[in-house]
Amino acid sequence: MTNSAYESARDAAVAARDATIPSKYLIHGQIPTNAVSLLKTSGLLSTAELAILDLSATALAATIARKDVSCVQVTTAYVKAASLAQQGTNCLVELFANEALAQATALDQELAVKGPRGPLHGVPVSIKDHVDVRGHDSPSGFLSRVGKCVATEDAHMVSVMRDAGAVFYCKTTNPQALMQLECTSYLGTTTNPHNTRLTPGGSSGGEGALIGFKGSPLGIGTDVGGSIRCPAAHCGIYGFKPTAGRVPYGGCNAPMLPPGWEGILCTHGPMARSAEDLEMYMKLIADSEPWRRDPSLVVKPWTPVRSAKLRVGVLWDDGVVAPVVPMRRGLEMTVDKLRAAGHEVVTYKPYKSEEAWEVLRKLYWPDAGQAVRQCLDEAGEPMHPLSAWIIDQGGEKAPTASDLLSAVAARDAFRLALAKHWQESGVDVVLSPAYATPAPPHFTSTYWNYTAYWNLANYPAAVFPTGLVVESGDVHEGSPRNDKEKEIWDTYDPATAEGAPISLQLVGYVGQDEATLAALRVVIAAME
Amino acid sequence: MTNSAYESARDAAVAARDATIPSKYLIHGQIPTNAVSLLKTSGLLSTAELAILDLSATALAATIARKDVSCVQVTTAYVKAASLAQQGTNCLVELFANEALAQATALDQELAVKGPRGPLHGVPVSIKDHVDVRGHDSPSGFLSRVGKCVATEDAHMVSVMRDAGAVFYCKTTNPQALMQLECTSYLGTTTNPHNTRLTPGGSSGGEGALIGFKGSPLGIGTDVGGSIRCPAAHCGIYGFKPTAGRVPYGGCNAPMLPPGWEGILCTHGPMARSAEDLEMYMKLIADSEPWRRDPSLVVKPWTPVRSAKLRVGVLWDDGVVAPVVPMRRGLEMTVDKLRAAGHEVVTYKPYKSEEAWEVLRKLYWPDAGQAVRQCLDEAGEPMHPLSAWIIDQGGEKAPTASDLLSAVAARDAFRLALAKHWQESGVDVVLSPAYATPAPPHFTSTYWNYTAYWNLANYPAAVFPTGLVVESGDVHEGSPRNDKEKEIWDTYDPATAEGAPISLQLVGYVGQDEATLAALRVVIAAME
Repeated sequence: MTNSAYESARDAAVAARDATIPSKYLIHGQIPTNAVSLLKTSGLLSTAELAILDLSATALAATIARKDVSCVQVTTAYVKAASLAQQGTNCLVELFANEALAQATALDQELAVKGPRGPLHGVPVSIKDHVDVRGHDSPSGFLSRVGKCVATEDAHMVSVMRDAGAVFYCKTTNPQALMQLECTSYLGTTTNPHNTRLTPGGSSGGEGALIGFKGSPLGIGTDVGGSIRCPAAHCGIYGFKPTAGRVPYGGCNAPMLPPGWEGILCTHGPMARSAEDLEMYMKLIADSEPWRRDPSLVVKPWTPVRSAKLRVGVLWDDGVVAPVVPMRRGLEMTVDKLRAAGHEVVTYKPYKSEEAWEVLRKLYWPDAGQAVRQCLDEAGEPMHPLSAWIIDQGGEKAPTASDLLSAVAARDAFRLALAKHWQESGVDVVLSPAYATPAPPHFTSTYWNYTAYWNLANYPAAVFPTGLVVESGDVHEGSPRNDKEKEIWDTYDPATAEGAPISLQLVGYVGQDEATLAALRVVIAAME
Repeated sequence: MTNSAYESARDAAVAARDATIPSKYLIHGQIPTNAVSLLKTSGLLSTAELAILDLSATALAATIARKDVSCVQVTTAYVKAASLAQQGTNCLVELFANEALAQATALDQELAVKGPRGPLHGVPVSIKDHVDVRGHDSPSGFLSRVGKCVATEDAHMVSVMRDAGAVFYCKTTNPQALMQLECTSYLGTTTNPHNTRLTPGGSSGGEGALIGFKGSPLGIGTDVGGSIRCPAAHCGIYGFKPTAGRVPYGGCNAPMLPPGWEGILCTHGPMARSAEDLEMYMKLIADSEPWRRDPSLVVKPWTPVRSAKLRVGVLWDDGVVAPVVPMRRGLEMTVDKLRAAGHEVVTYKPYKSEEAWEVLRKLYWPDAGQAVRQCLDEAGEPMHPLSAWIIDQGGEKAPTASDLLSAVAARDAFRLALAKHWQESGVDVVLSPAYATPAPPHFTSTYWNYTAYWNLANYPAAVFPTGLVVESGDVHEGSPRNDKEKEIWDTYDPATAEGAPISLQLVGYVGQDEATLAALRVVIAAME
């Protein structure tokens, strides 16, 4: 396939996607840098509809259950908002308004007769491209797969949500090869809803942009290196990466990898606009006893723990790339509030950050990117520089059987040593940035270690907004300690990043998902 | 190294092992076919000591805690019994009586001052060769490793038991390469305590023989294909293979494999003379929160479940090698008693037994046995035919990286399909033999699938004695359906196997270790 054939196929795919936006919701004129402002300036949404968008998923479900609003009203509001989000940030792969409104109508009838089907009755839920939704395509960021991956059944977690009354209305962008902390594919570049000069992060970048825009109350992302947490942080929303093995992954497509690789496990997780929604989602999944269908999962009900006084370790600097000034400002404010609320705050010593990346980068590519190149070649699609960068991290040569075993052995040795370090530190949770900077300009995200480190560890981690945003005075100065620190610091400029959310990450020990989210609640309470 | 060099090194190793048996406990004359009879005929043990041997580990700990017997008395009784077991069945790698008696003395003093240290205070515990015990060698069935593997620290579960007051006094045999359902190594062949013409099973064959002999109240075995359950069954004791990831494996040596392979996971587990001991042990390990040290483990306290009315599925025949007559007699009696006690019993349809072995055999040897050959070559040790048989099952050629991924993908597909089959069957547990025959004659165990199938599945499984033994009338007749069935049936002869215990296996769903052991209690209650 020649490049021009690629370009015309790409343009056709983009046009087909654009055509899924109802024409009555198309707007004209310049997209503002703060795309979120479109919600009001477009005049498309009524005051009542704007009020719907302000509710958390949990509150929305309660409002619907009380019949204060109908499922159709809610879905209509979110179809409008998602239409605007797409035009503002390029965050959708498909919008299926008619199907969603039909679902909402049926759910209204069911509610009238039988009451709520479950905790998501009537709640619109957005789904990341590579996660199967019955009847919809999952090209997973590759043009060659467009139209060839129409799902005949829902992914495992999608079926749980459907049974709980969720309304599915759109699928959201992920980047080429699913392996960027940004979000560019044949569909173009998804932008940050708060500042379109910046990336929304990735790979669940479409979810980050859409939810940050208030175009969705709850979305499903996936994370093998930060792909839930990075976009949640950059877009100022909440996200949670559970311990792998706690929630099902069945029905997530991974065309960029050969099947059968478990050296590093991806996990799905919720992205939302409140901490309570993260917990509501985790409980919903556990209550469905997903291990009965998927025997790879831990058999463990959701068992909430109480968290009163926390001992919080702060990762001020991972020793490789120190967080820039506004991130440090976010940490300092949070620490002050935690101390004022009576919590113990200590410095958490980084444990072998650089070595961790040496171990992890070898785990990402058991075939040296061969599957990616095949997916690209089939459509003549050029490899994006960010895809090339992360594939190069794995090394040029395809690993042998012995290389794969060595990589896994190194992982296990690292995990064992880190567990000792963590236990000796005596912390309940670690507070850290999710990225060394706020949302950076496009095509610059080449330092994964504030998030990916915890994928190597397989520790659960949540992201939350501090409420702060980048201000013009947030100038970062200093002498970088190494080339990577210089490279990352150079991407940050307060004038460019002004208005970008300052978010943080809260990490718990492996398997302690309940305790991690309980700690998140405590931290948020301290900040209020 | 020439063969004669191997032979002299081997003879020296055997002599060194023999020298660990206190000379005052050496007996003379012929070893009886029913080796257990030595306990009484040797005259070494007093009536009080014989009574100690009759207690379960749980009852023994209670007796010690009440100060009805001292730790020294108990250890003395077990040192005597283990000395006899070694002479009767060749089940030990090392006996360390003096160290054990010193431990027991200290524990008696501690008990007097502070009370019991934990639920194993003063209880002797035997440990399989390849599991590290501080200060002792772990040659793991290879002559080349003798004297080179003296542990500087306890294996994880050994340290938990030590903290709970266990007395360590011996290490027990495992076969060459750890991969036989029998027990032959450079130390010779371990025999069945009830009938020395038969194998005790393996690979935890030394544990099976020793505990079946009453030379230990509680032992640690490991299981990746039946290595706890097969010897437990053949020796008429209880054994439990937990779900992998529920109990720690740190400190178990696996020189027969390259590190970093997780295609099929081995797990350790308890072997004992009562079902209550299996649960006591599992609770002890979980109560130690082993996940704090070993981050590969599930974070899950031991949460006992109540089991009243069971729905038991019976695997009468796996479709490849039908159980011989006495095993069927054991199943029938158990089914009758379960029905009489009000439980529901249905036939469990086997699910792709032959295909399961096709998937599993490729998972055992990620290096086509290269590590085994290296361990053997270093001492000029010949490969045992049973080692050669199982290595050959993996295929001749070393798998490529792509082969390893395919094998894991096939495993996951099998597990997913089996979970569906299990859930549709609606059973709580599956009742099955642990081997198609009772303990067979030595060097004949080449059908692993009644146990290994559940390693592929990663389902927890317990073994228990029915109380029945092989009788001379247990003649097996019939037309074998295939060569393997003929081969296995041909190993069985009631005259040879007379007196061999008839044991069964109870299998639960993955992760439901508590429910599986609760069901075991219910089954045993029905049989009383």
